[in-house]
Amino acid sequence: MNVLIVHAHNEPGSFTTAMKNLAVVILSEQGHEVRVSDLYAQRFNPVASAADFGSRDNDEYLVYALEQRHNLKNGTLAQDISTELEKLQWADLIIFSFPIYWFGMPAILKGWIDRVFVSGLCYGGRRIYDQGGLKGKQAMLAFTLGGQRHMFGKGSVHGEIETLLRPIHQGMLAYVGLEVLPPFIAYHVPYISETERWDYLNSYCEHLLTLDERTPLVFPKLAEFDGNLRPRAGSASPESLP
Amino acid sequence: MNVLIVHAHNEPGSFTTAMKNLAVVILSEQGHEVRVSDLYAQRFNPVASAADFGSRDNDEYLVYALEQRHNLKNGTLAQDISTELEKLQWADLIIFSFPIYWFGMPAILKGWIDRVFVSGLCYGGRRIYDQGGLKGKQAMLAFTLGGQRHMFGKGSVHGEIETLLRPIHQGMLAYVGLEVLPPFIAYHVPYISETERWDYLNSYCEHLLTLDERTPLVFPKLAEFDGNLRPRAGSASPESLP
Repeated sequence: MNVLIVHAHNEPGSFTTAMKNLAVVILSEQGHEVRVSDLYAQRFNPVASAADFGSRDNDEYLVYALEQRHNLKNGTLAQDISTELEKLQWADLIIFSFPIYWFGMPAILKGWIDRVFVSGLCYGGRRIYDQGGLKGKQAMLAFTLGGQRHMFGKGSVHGEIETLLRPIHQGMLAYVGLEVLPPFIAYHVPYISETERWDYLNSYCEHLLTLDERTPLVFPKLAEFDGNLRPRAGSASPESLP
Repeated sequence: MNVLIVHAHNEPGSFTTAMKNLAVVILSEQGHEVRVSDLYAQRFNPVASAADFGSRDNDEYLVYALEQRHNLKNGTLAQDISTELEKLQWADLIIFSFPIYWFGMPAILKGWIDRVFVSGLCYGGRRIYDQGGLKGKQAMLAFTLGGQRHMFGKGSVHGEIETLLRPIHQGMLAYVGLEVLPPFIAYHVPYISETERWDYLNSYCEHLLTLDERTPLVFPKLAEFDGNLRPRAGSASPESLP
């Protein structure tokens, strides 16, 4: 497999970075090709703007997605976007490696999605979910957070982690056709002992060695919806959706 | 009231920007003080990094939240963060004005949260949710999206909008003690007619004129959880939580 790790941490000595480094070693030893987009090291620009486009379909009024399509076709996307897009197309599996900031991705990583998941290639019209432009590829989150495991779940203070991840899992990854593998989560990282950190690295190692045994998460299938994306009569019960 | 509108759109002529401009007029006419942080116009930097700190508690190893506390105390936060923080402290109501990107905020706005919701002032330890550092203030989302209303809801293709907004409403706004007002949502904006856009502006106007009639959303109350943030026996049923 070709594996792209998109990594976002502002401390090169962080535990999240150790997890990323471990993944590079383990996956390479397994015979996979591994590339890393280290967004802080690259000083990646996360701001989607007119500066991303070398040509314009409409230079009076910016509709970002339309200009993505126009510039993709013309080969005039900003160089940093093209570089990342080439890695994305090369990859069979994309691992997103980051610390949770405010129940989501750090802005530098959110901006990678905003700018690199280009309309016309990754999605467009009805080319979403199981018909998305990246279908055939897989994605997985590998993240750290400060909260403890018991703070997440039904009736817990922050609610279910699956719910908090929904915008990422469904709205970003499944939306473009990626098959989403269950995440690897390291809780309470800033506060745990050295031993517990080693335990997490061991578990992550095990997680990486058994990726093919993991059941992908379930998301909408376009066949269950009509041309206006309304549920078809007789399609699978909505309850089956996450 | 003092109202801060944090606005993020890369097209000054956009409908989202028209909504922001309308809010400035309506709220000012109502006698409120209104200030705007126009993140694209300010070329706001959304990347949380070591460059945000004029001094360091630990200059070997960056723990972003700890350096936020240290630099807050020492008055050495980056100038752009201090400026935004001053507006945040001034405001009684914060309106976030943006287009949905990937079921969430554009990176430039996510990074405003990452950098300006400073640990030690906005939250810290058990100063979260109804004990959060910004308690007494209100917040509201006002956003546009490309999808249609029927694509959101139970059993719909993208799921319930409340679920998709949970990381923002609970994980960012309620978490720091803000009372969260129901959002104003304009669907299908890139595709609707001029008339429908005017209808949305009328509805938004009405929404802004009746803010005090709106019931805030419900989030965890710390009294229902023990010192480790585990639910206390006999506290309100988890089902009462969103």
